[in-house]
Amino acid sequence: MRIAELSRRSDVPVPTIKYYLREGLLPPGELTSRNQASYGEQHLRRLRLIRALIDLAHVPVAGVKVVLDALDSDSMSLHDQLGQVHRAVTPRPQLTANDADRVAAEAQVRKLVDDRGWLVEPDAPAIATLIETVAVLRSLDQARLVEHLDAYAEAVERFTELEVAAVVTRTDPHQIAESVVIGTILGETLIAALRLLAQENVSARRLGGPTT
Amino acid sequence: MRIAELSRRSDVPVPTIKYYLREGLLPPGELTSRNQASYGEQHLRRLRLIRALIDLAHVPVAGVKVVLDALDSDSMSLHDQLGQVHRAVTPRPQLTANDADRVAAEAQVRKLVDDRGWLVEPDAPAIATLIETVAVLRSLDQARLVEHLDAYAEAVERFTELEVAAVVTRTDPHQIAESVVIGTILGETLIAALRLLAQENVSARRLGGPTT
Repeated sequence: MRIAELSRRSDVPVPTIKYYLREGLLPPGELTSRNQASYGEQHLRRLRLIRALIDLAHVPVAGVKVVLDALDSDSMSLHDQLGQVHRAVTPRPQLTANDADRVAAEAQVRKLVDDRGWLVEPDAPAIATLIETVAVLRSLDQARLVEHLDAYAEAVERFTELEVAAVVTRTDPHQIAESVVIGTILGETLIAALRLLAQENVSARRLGGPTT
Repeated sequence: MRIAELSRRSDVPVPTIKYYLREGLLPPGELTSRNQASYGEQHLRRLRLIRALIDLAHVPVAGVKVVLDALDSDSMSLHDQLGQVHRAVTPRPQLTANDADRVAAEAQVRKLVDDRGWLVEPDAPAIATLIETVAVLRSLDQARLVEHLDAYAEAVERFTELEVAAVVTRTDPHQIAESVVIGTILGETLIAALRLLAQENVSARRLGGPTT
């Protein structure tokens, strides 16, 4: 199909498609004449993925490029693909907590990782984010919200098991990689939405309910 | 304290503090002369909260104002405060899925809410986000990732129970509101980081591990 049809079918404006082509987010079409190219179903599919990452998961364009490069890599292990995606979607946190609270938070997080026997890089960006979040909660006098960090971690592990179980039913390595990458990123949006609904439900039942 | 000391102790530049004052994010200080004001510990505390919301939870400034207004309200019920915070942190999703996938996703999400007996507004922004996320996963051939949406919802309910249990130990209504608001927003950052670490652990153990 020509770029106009690709635009119509994907609901992405032509200038945006051209921008994605220039940035290397979308592979070039097949040249059919000096200044015309033809695009296929894989372009449509890729455009849908790009829009989902940007519009729904709020991944910045530079991060989308890193995610797609990981997905398209033939030489990276699945573990390394996942690591690259994690780094792309987890910015180093800005430091806003008190130093003393950060020291206490780091000890709490390191102990959690040890206690659970998690095999994670000590300098993974998610560790830095977790430490800073716990530190900030302490700085805001909300230490009790993370008193039982281990119980949260246990509940989170249950998700992860469900997520992994849904992915490993596939057999084709590229399909597995695609499920891992998409599931990691959109899974966060999904879980965040489920959590707000579960909160609204508890609030309606226990915290006073809607004023009518 | 003067604004310079407030800046030093909060690590927020003076022009940024003045911007927050103009936008009404920070209440005015007490005037000590025609053009000098004095700030107290509550200003320092509020600045820490603002920085955490912006830098760590990535809430836009307009959303921060809505969150703080809810927190400061004397007339809203806790349920309404929570609802206002949810709306501030949950933008209406851009629609990127196929219409047919959205119809199927909506049916799946409505059934989930029914099956779990969740008391939630049918037009809650989190419902719209959940529907669009499920729809996009279907459009990207990842329907199997949400085949067991109910199991995810059940795992999420476990968090929410833990979160509520940590909050209701407080007795002062303003402290409860503060814990609910901060916990809702920073809890998302916390859970997202825990999830990435749990994923990295499972990946290291089951999906090949790091290449050495």
